[in-house]
Amino acid sequence: MAKVNIEKKILTKNEMKAAEVRERLKDVAVLNFVSSPGSGKTTLLENVLAGLKEKYKIAVVEGDQQTTHDADRIKAAGVEAFQVNTGNACHLEAVDVERALDTLGYDLDLLVIENVGNLVCPAEYDLGEDAKVMLISVTEGDDKPIKYPVMTRACEAMIVNKTDLLPYVDFDVEGCIRYAKGVNPDLEIMTVSCRAKEGLDTVTAYIEKKILEKKGK
Amino acid sequence: MAKVNIEKKILTKNEMKAAEVRERLKDVAVLNFVSSPGSGKTTLLENVLAGLKEKYKIAVVEGDQQTTHDADRIKAAGVEAFQVNTGNACHLEAVDVERALDTLGYDLDLLVIENVGNLVCPAEYDLGEDAKVMLISVTEGDDKPIKYPVMTRACEAMIVNKTDLLPYVDFDVEGCIRYAKGVNPDLEIMTVSCRAKEGLDTVTAYIEKKILEKKGK
Repeated sequence: MAKVNIEKKILTKNEMKAAEVRERLKDVAVLNFVSSPGSGKTTLLENVLAGLKEKYKIAVVEGDQQTTHDADRIKAAGVEAFQVNTGNACHLEAVDVERALDTLGYDLDLLVIENVGNLVCPAEYDLGEDAKVMLISVTEGDDKPIKYPVMTRACEAMIVNKTDLLPYVDFDVEGCIRYAKGVNPDLEIMTVSCRAKEGLDTVTAYIEKKILEKKGK
Repeated sequence: MAKVNIEKKILTKNEMKAAEVRERLKDVAVLNFVSSPGSGKTTLLENVLAGLKEKYKIAVVEGDQQTTHDADRIKAAGVEAFQVNTGNACHLEAVDVERALDTLGYDLDLLVIENVGNLVCPAEYDLGEDAKVMLISVTEGDDKPIKYPVMTRACEAMIVNKTDLLPYVDFDVEGCIRYAKGVNPDLEIMTVSCRAKEGLDTVTAYIEKKILEKKGK
């Protein structure tokens, strides 16, 4: 008797919820920002969203084990934000995004998710995003893309941040990019200094492209 | 009828393995270094162990998702090291330490474990250590001790690293210490710059105290 293999991926609870979130946000650009703690995600968002908010309806979901510092900072920049405190948990899940959207509403052009500062676990959780965007600060060492290859592979873009500190640290930007491209050849790469206000236009353009792509659908 | 509560903690597989490791290392000081990726654990160890290795028998277990960079660096500093690659995993477990000790041997004065760069998950895994030691770099922001309170509470000591970068970042050392002590009042705190070679003696003295405590038992 011939054997027929019927292969069907069994979705986890999180993947099912992520699919629901993605369906409800099908006209909204959704970006999931990930990095080590303190790589500068919030500062970058403060800088970039301040300009974009004049043209687009934006909201931010902030993930942290504790405190509302980040949501407070985003709100102070004039953008809607919802803080999720994960307690012991090391990553956001799609259900957290859904809960945030109950408050923030779905009538958006852009939803930014700032994940818990962790270069490991958030790589494996789909939040219904269009793309994951990874930040690396130049103080962290240029080998991070290959030391955390799962995250590097999971991302569409990598932003090398805090380039104003390059004169004071040992960090080879070209070497870092080479490492990253070795793991993920398609990775879009941007370099930025929020302090020196350099490279922010590139990030703004990347985000705006994502918004227009979703609107064009 | 009177009710008698019999409480007995049910140990996880990791906790049982950690207890075994602790028993076998009962005369060895065991320190579990934790931090975000790129806070400078390896550089600190290179600096501090270079001196201590003249007096004590030391080995290092290096945890990373991928690469042997860190073990290579420790070996280049003249200290025995064993690299554990965790693959997708976000933390070391006691069984990884046991496996490393199969190679490194138990005849040691000091075993240093450099955990996977992750300020979240390693907080919850006992590796048979005497103490967890947390590094925070001044580029990461002074609120990290309260944003990652589980780790702050799990540690005996906190080392504020890269103080040479203080002139170029917004980081309030006193504020960071206040946050940390708010979460864990007993936390021993040290400030260090490996680049400027400042504060290293304090870390050396802390580690030596741990070695002598174990020898005195």
